[in-house]
Amino acid sequence: MDYDNVSRQTIIRLPSYLNYLKNLTNDRYTNISATIIANALGLNDVQVRKDLSVVSSAGKPKVGYNREELIKDIESFLGYDTHNRAVLVGAGNLGQALLSHDGFSKYGIDIVAAFDKDADKAGMMINGREVRPIEELSSFCKRNRIRIGVLTVPEERAQEACDCMLEAGIVAILNYAQVYLVVPAEVKVETETVAYAISQLINHIR
Amino acid sequence: MDYDNVSRQTIIRLPSYLNYLKNLTNDRYTNISATIIANALGLNDVQVRKDLSVVSSAGKPKVGYNREELIKDIESFLGYDTHNRAVLVGAGNLGQALLSHDGFSKYGIDIVAAFDKDADKAGMMINGREVRPIEELSSFCKRNRIRIGVLTVPEERAQEACDCMLEAGIVAILNYAQVYLVVPAEVKVETETVAYAISQLINHIR
Repeated sequence: MDYDNVSRQTIIRLPSYLNYLKNLTNDRYTNISATIIANALGLNDVQVRKDLSVVSSAGKPKVGYNREELIKDIESFLGYDTHNRAVLVGAGNLGQALLSHDGFSKYGIDIVAAFDKDADKAGMMINGREVRPIEELSSFCKRNRIRIGVLTVPEERAQEACDCMLEAGIVAILNYAQVYLVVPAEVKVETETVAYAISQLINHIR
Repeated sequence: MDYDNVSRQTIIRLPSYLNYLKNLTNDRYTNISATIIANALGLNDVQVRKDLSVVSSAGKPKVGYNREELIKDIESFLGYDTHNRAVLVGAGNLGQALLSHDGFSKYGIDIVAAFDKDADKAGMMINGREVRPIEELSSFCKRNRIRIGVLTVPEERAQEACDCMLEAGIVAILNYAQVYLVVPAEVKVETETVAYAISQLINHIR
């Protein structure tokens, strides 16, 4: 199934299924049905069946899915079974927090180094990753064939840092600055949108 | 304009406009046109005009928008001009990182206290906020009329923590655990979806 043709809502639900399946310790569930998953997660079972059919052909009528196979299929679809090395640019508060939390690795991204404009930060170790001067970004990425970057600089410096990443050969950017980045068509930017989530919540309570 | 009828894409672009407008130091821009904003951000000017017309009626033909008014209109639409007190549940790595980074306040949410199940964490101060025992969540929220909560516990404890929040009267939850939360219809959950963004990026490079 072509990833690009799958709806955003389906892709957002997949990590929930994966988490549920991985945490199942009950031996009874060598095979598991969409209905059981749906009930456990409070979702509609037609929806769950549809979502799973997108990523896996391992489902059988009356038997359901083999749990291990389904886990593998979801991980493979989401790219979590890969190990993509990435760099982080901007080792300020947010960058340091993300390095410490280390929440990306289970999604298939390993941050291997951080870069910062501030020469004083060079040499700092955060959760096993070294902070390097931004001048080394390009040679580091090219030498290590790194194409994914996480951008955690303040808004007013985001485009400048983005340009450094482009020059270094980065083609996929996870952008934590709430600004629109100007990039060539072949580069993909995903902007982290806590602003959107928060405005939805505020709208809900007012 | 009814917030609920505005597209997600528009709401995601609004913080970029806001950031651009607030950082403009040039006195020349007492008034500013959608075209100037579009050019600065690398966006289509028809799109920008449409987005701004959703949130503001301050635009005039040939004159553009009064910058100060437009800033106020966008902030008001997004709810950033309000001060909504919120609690954070789960003072582990991620919770502490979010408290330290303090990235929510500019979006109208002030986290005033954190809660954790681990009694050893009680009394810790993180960036001026006290960590309290989870048993105090309900009385704290009710006393302070807090209806927004940020959930940063591990996945396997997310539903349990969510239930505590519901019992405390929380009706709007920013969920950082990648699990589906079962809540009554009147409660709004926004799940932070870095999983989705990352899978998009990985798909882009493979």
